[in-house]
Amino acid sequence: MAGLKNDRFLRALLKQPVDVTPVWMMRQAGRYLPEYRATRTKAGSFMDLCKNPELACEVTIQPLERFPLDAAILFSDILTVPDAMGLGLRFAEGEGPIFDRPVRTAADVDKLFVPDPEGELRYVMDAVRTIRRELDGRVPLIGFSGSPWTLATYMVEGGSSKEFAHVKGMLYDQPALMHKLLDVTAQAVTQYLNAQVDAGAQALMIFDTWGGALTPRDYQEFSLRYMAQIIAGLKREADGRKVPVVMFTKGGGLWLEAMADAGADALGLDWTVDIGAARRRVGSKVALQGNMDPCVLYASPERIRTEVKDILAAYGQGSGHVFNLGHGIHQHVNPEHAAAFVEAVHQLSATYHQ
Amino acid sequence: MAGLKNDRFLRALLKQPVDVTPVWMMRQAGRYLPEYRATRTKAGSFMDLCKNPELACEVTIQPLERFPLDAAILFSDILTVPDAMGLGLRFAEGEGPIFDRPVRTAADVDKLFVPDPEGELRYVMDAVRTIRRELDGRVPLIGFSGSPWTLATYMVEGGSSKEFAHVKGMLYDQPALMHKLLDVTAQAVTQYLNAQVDAGAQALMIFDTWGGALTPRDYQEFSLRYMAQIIAGLKREADGRKVPVVMFTKGGGLWLEAMADAGADALGLDWTVDIGAARRRVGSKVALQGNMDPCVLYASPERIRTEVKDILAAYGQGSGHVFNLGHGIHQHVNPEHAAAFVEAVHQLSATYHQ
Repeated sequence: MAGLKNDRFLRALLKQPVDVTPVWMMRQAGRYLPEYRATRTKAGSFMDLCKNPELACEVTIQPLERFPLDAAILFSDILTVPDAMGLGLRFAEGEGPIFDRPVRTAADVDKLFVPDPEGELRYVMDAVRTIRRELDGRVPLIGFSGSPWTLATYMVEGGSSKEFAHVKGMLYDQPALMHKLLDVTAQAVTQYLNAQVDAGAQALMIFDTWGGALTPRDYQEFSLRYMAQIIAGLKREADGRKVPVVMFTKGGGLWLEAMADAGADALGLDWTVDIGAARRRVGSKVALQGNMDPCVLYASPERIRTEVKDILAAYGQGSGHVFNLGHGIHQHVNPEHAAAFVEAVHQLSATYHQ
Repeated sequence: MAGLKNDRFLRALLKQPVDVTPVWMMRQAGRYLPEYRATRTKAGSFMDLCKNPELACEVTIQPLERFPLDAAILFSDILTVPDAMGLGLRFAEGEGPIFDRPVRTAADVDKLFVPDPEGELRYVMDAVRTIRRELDGRVPLIGFSGSPWTLATYMVEGGSSKEFAHVKGMLYDQPALMHKLLDVTAQAVTQYLNAQVDAGAQALMIFDTWGGALTPRDYQEFSLRYMAQIIAGLKREADGRKVPVVMFTKGGGLWLEAMADAGADALGLDWTVDIGAARRRVGSKVALQGNMDPCVLYASPERIRTEVKDILAAYGQGSGHVFNLGHGIHQHVNPEHAAAFVEAVHQLSATYHQ
């Protein structure tokens, strides 16, 4: 990997020594930044922005110009894969994502297919290639996907959901059909992530936003199992260097032991779990990424600093921690508070790496 | 307690022997029942229904006419207490609850007061008296309140929230002010629940809907602590019989050990925790109430039966389990599926009580 000037993020994910704890923020390219809002206006709709590699690259790099972040993450959406499967994605103002053709029947599931990452999804790979070139080795580039279960919730509900009536109806009443849906989605995600690695992604993250809505038994059978299947099928080396994989189930704090055995290099944590307790539970199996409550960024820079200090102390000595928020940064956060957060991580963490 | 014909629910909460596992459903008086919708139309708005003791009694008893439930729960709303504190509650169509005068500043907190349960909240006590009389000993009547933290989220945000920007901003930046708000609210809830016991409630439940949105440290300091304070101040006997208290933090599965020490007789569980594992974790300290995923009720009666069987088996032999859903029943559930659920609990549980 010629010319990677800052590899803290990759090293921490592999528990190799680092000088300070690396930090990035989920949704770091987003609406809290005025420059993002300007590019978004230029692009048109949210999906227009995702599908324009030059502009997707522009917003990916914007937060790096403001803050000394240790990783960039591809600007895209988790729903690109089901969109490429022909479900007809659109974003309705104030309503979030909508699929015009939700998956409700066996016939609907039969129509699903593994999209060609360099065909229907070529715009994503073009964005990865463009960003990687523009980054020019500054920090590693993270590629990502939604987990099959999380994608399935949108595919079956036809959009966002609070109750999951349709998708859980299918899970409980037609488990074989649900497995078929999840299996083809897992195949699609595997090819999609491998293509991102080929295009230049240097680490991968799987977002399981809705795994925490399942029972412990169903989490293992319908979410974790397919993430493990994906991880087993991933290319794990690029440019002669390991490509680490981070698996993040929001609300999955009860199940860390099972998650640590799924093959990922690191687990993402939300803020409902103490990172010190989590470290003791997973032992040396995986690194941890997280886990400050994004709402702390509404507080004063002094308070943000205290919270960073507490989380660093809870994790304790040594590598294996990538600092992050426990969920995406909120749109109404003051960018100066994000700056205070990133600065605090770097300043206060050196003592844990001596 | 002269004439209580079915006391399984109270006995199970105190881990006394029962013939079968008692069952009720959170939000059992609700929109999934056509008779509820008819009464609601007659009443006017949702708050009109809450404030009309005769109609609140009518909807409280409706589910008992359909299903052999082992408890009734007062029909009311958790926001009656802050409404009585002068915040101006209304329900906007499709938007949920709105407080016209949210609590944002120290001056706002200073204005809060402990409402007189037989004054501003007399309509609730009248409903309890009416329901208790109409129940005529058929099953016990559960009184309830929201937890101080959960009430605070609505009081500070001014309504429902996904991000908790204002309330967590206050928690992180002005913890002393947040404690002041929570303390007066805890005092109000204590008096409110004690008045419900005086009016005839035979068990109490504290709903901590949003405790699971906190970090482990903040859950203990800002939510659990005030629930424990309330429980310590409750009248625990009525009609010569113990009044059991159930404490339910949605998303609190990680913190059961701490919750078991708060003084409640039972803990409510959502479906993200295995009830057998939960029982092992809390030992003999508390009974457990829960925990079927409400979405199982979208599945077939056969599938519902299987799920009930699995949860009964996970809890295992002996008393100390009140069967319930892990959250309120959804409005689109077929009432016949609710009937299948209740029947399955009674039919399949006898074997665990021999």
